Amino acid sequence: MTTAKRDTYTPETLLSVAVRVFNERGYDGTSMEHLSKAAGISKSSIYHHVTGKEELLRRAVSRALDGLFAILDEPGAGQGRAIERVEYVTRRTVEVLTAELPYVTLLLRVRGNTGTERWALDRRREFDQKVAELLKAAVADGDLRADVDIKLATRLLFGMINSLVEWYRPHPGGNADREQLADTVVHLAFDGLRTVR
Amino acid sequence: MTTAKRDTYTPETLLSVAVRVFNERGYDGTSMEHLSKAAGISKSSIYHHVTGKEELLRRAVSRALDGLFAILDEPGAGQGRAIERVEYVTRRTVEVLTAELPYVTLLLRVRGNTGTERWALDRRREFDQKVAELLKAAVADGDLRADVDIKLATRLLFGMINSLVEWYRPHPGGNADREQLADTVVHLAFDGLRTVR
Repeated sequence: MTTAKRDTYTPETLLSVAVRVFNERGYDGTSMEHLSKAAGISKSSIYHHVTGKEELLRRAVSRALDGLFAILDEPGAGQGRAIERVEYVTRRTVEVLTAELPYVTLLLRVRGNTGTERWALDRRREFDQKVAELLKAAVADGDLRADVDIKLATRLLFGMINSLVEWYRPHPGGNADREQLADTVVHLAFDGLRTVR
Repeated sequence: MTTAKRDTYTPETLLSVAVRVFNERGYDGTSMEHLSKAAGISKSSIYHHVTGKEELLRRAVSRALDGLFAILDEPGAGQGRAIERVEYVTRRTVEVLTAELPYVTLLLRVRGNTGTERWALDRRREFDQKVAELLKAAVADGDLRADVDIKLATRLLFGMINSLVEWYRPHPGGNADREQLADTVVHLAFDGLRTVR
């Protein structure tokens, strides 16, 4: 029944196994041997689907990046005042991060040793830059404080959002959970923890 | 002149080399051979100072933890309204993190495979818990919003602060720099980015 077992493997399931192993061992520390063992299929079966581990990395981080960049094309990110758009993007970034947790975790751990890693870092910077531009527009509108350095604020905002990968673990059917989390991040970032004076 | 060279090594300089190597290669990925090469002294010279790499790890994370816990004993952390104390602790945490950057970076990367790592994780949790208690007291005083989950707020606050290790690099003589950074973190966390309504 070797054939049947092999047939259950799609590029999609192989990808989810690879992402788990990359997150556990680090990309550099993962060999095709590790992937083969974790997936329970031979190395040659893996090569039937992909050219090697770098292709798996590229597919995995692409999934995270596509999810993030898609936010910017949503109506909420393009319509209304800049402050509303930046709040929308912040909320949706938390939602994509929690929905695609292993993929975004891998993206955030990429360090830049291979071409794929450097490409992923560039794309991440591009996304952060788009958010920084929205923040700048909201400052120009007078809706965000002008006395905060935008570059620093963007870094701290993403620092807070991205820290979710360290501790957030999805509940089964936890959409309400995710929405509450996104609400809290938006409140903290834009209104602060202090009671309204 | 072997003796002279060996004499330039103090436990302190060995520690700073070890912390750099641990941060670069990961603690698990660092051998005594790596430490010996990086320090430019023989393994037996290292064993003259410490029992092994776990002792170096313990000393390094202790330095970070001692710096953080010392904040809680400062007058600013113990006097005044809870909101003022929690702002003080937030500000000082940023200052300690940036002043002891490699040590705190190592502390935040500890994952818990050895006794020392588990101990460090427990101590970190203890520190976070003290800050969570201060936040709770500030909510009880009516100074912080009651509609935000304290555990979540604590995690997001530390997520934002701890993200500094990913990108903050000290300037020579950059104390002003550090103060500005601490100011921004406190403003963002407690007042938010929005202009005061």
